[in-house]
Amino acid sequence: MRDYTSSQHDHCEDAQLKRMRIVLVSPSHPGNIGAVARAMKNMGLCQLVLVNPPDDWAGEQARVRATSALDVLQRAQVVESLETAIAPCTLVLGASARLRSSRWPQLPVDEAAALALSRSGAGEQVALVFGRETSGLTNGELDLCHALLHIPSNPACASLNLAAAVQVVAWEVYQHWLGDEKPVSNTFEGAPQVSAAVMEGFYAHLFTLLEQVEFMDVKQNEHFKRRLRKLFYRASLNQKEVDILRGIFRACQRKIGE
Amino acid sequence: MRDYTSSQHDHCEDAQLKRMRIVLVSPSHPGNIGAVARAMKNMGLCQLVLVNPPDDWAGEQARVRATSALDVLQRAQVVESLETAIAPCTLVLGASARLRSSRWPQLPVDEAAALALSRSGAGEQVALVFGRETSGLTNGELDLCHALLHIPSNPACASLNLAAAVQVVAWEVYQHWLGDEKPVSNTFEGAPQVSAAVMEGFYAHLFTLLEQVEFMDVKQNEHFKRRLRKLFYRASLNQKEVDILRGIFRACQRKIGE
Repeated sequence: MRDYTSSQHDHCEDAQLKRMRIVLVSPSHPGNIGAVARAMKNMGLCQLVLVNPPDDWAGEQARVRATSALDVLQRAQVVESLETAIAPCTLVLGASARLRSSRWPQLPVDEAAALALSRSGAGEQVALVFGRETSGLTNGELDLCHALLHIPSNPACASLNLAAAVQVVAWEVYQHWLGDEKPVSNTFEGAPQVSAAVMEGFYAHLFTLLEQVEFMDVKQNEHFKRRLRKLFYRASLNQKEVDILRGIFRACQRKIGE
Repeated sequence: MRDYTSSQHDHCEDAQLKRMRIVLVSPSHPGNIGAVARAMKNMGLCQLVLVNPPDDWAGEQARVRATSALDVLQRAQVVESLETAIAPCTLVLGASARLRSSRWPQLPVDEAAALALSRSGAGEQVALVFGRETSGLTNGELDLCHALLHIPSNPACASLNLAAAVQVVAWEVYQHWLGDEKPVSNTFEGAPQVSAAVMEGFYAHLFTLLEQVEFMDVKQNEHFKRRLRKLFYRASLNQKEVDILRGIFRACQRKIGE
């Protein structure tokens, strides 16, 4: 698992992520270009290549939307053709909101992200290509891509904003990069879970109490014990909570003993 | 797999997706509100609730960014407090770019999306809550959430644009809705939760017992009560488990009375 919480570290410095470029073909709105830069840097991507952007591509509107990703915006490479933009790349994936004909192989976003990462991890240069705000990529441009990366969406409102589409793809790449191990413990509680030994002590204490208060025949009832184990397993107790609950058990036992 | 390609169908009409609301707490930029509406409709979500939005929340800037999601923007519900926004909801997840203290349980985005869908699929109302552009949600607002939904990001540029954060979460929800339903984290698994009223009866019974066994001064100790509530909330009890635990409480009370 990566130490992704270190505030010292800029994930854009990662060699694997650095070999991935986001290519925008003929974007029209500088605001979108700035928002793309931000979405990229949020997700550790820093190589932005612009094919025929508008004259004011790095102007006020772009800078406002880029916020703290101004460096990504200002270091963007401007080229005149998609061919030039993808020249050093051995994997080129073109984003598409629509399902196209079988002329191009299609990949779901998560598979595309995994593929892109594995290629860049092997030292290859990878391009993720996004088309015009209104009309996407032309067939001629798609012919330069090795596969389509398809972002499914609501047919009643299928077209994603350009920066939103980049955000979805960059998120999938970043999530895969962070690793199989989830950054946050899936036990659902921030505090570290206690050891199995501590939990066994907890269950032994609980089952003893249940015998003392004559709540069913706990010794015999394996099914019932399993139910309680499941319940407290789901609660994902931390040490403090184990202490509190065992404190309650002890209070009950004291009272019974009186 | 759903037939999501049918161009006739608006996924916003889906009952399961309809029970999910996006709540924006004190957003400042109308442009972001419009962009959120678009991100939502792209992903089949249509219930937008705004807590204290700016006066021009549905103005020119918002409409331009909403594009074909103008209906979602214009039907947004405006309320004065987060409490009102989430009143009918039985699951409330608050988005956070930062990892917070263990005071709040945390879920990775994909698990949060799976959980939200499984709950709304069971007929429950679900809220996904997003804070201010600059400062997120306050601790008091997070206290109203059942768990945090954490979007990991590059520490060197951690803060996502508001609409970008909604896009990531809505994408995960939509992806789960479209596809094979991934198993929900087993920390949350189980039968549908019981109503808040049943849980209040459970807590009242528990707290009465704790007074009877003289375990701390429960009447006075609000912090302690909150801890126990959180613990049993996480356990996501079903009716049978509530019955078993209350049976145990009664057994203790009988024994004490002897």
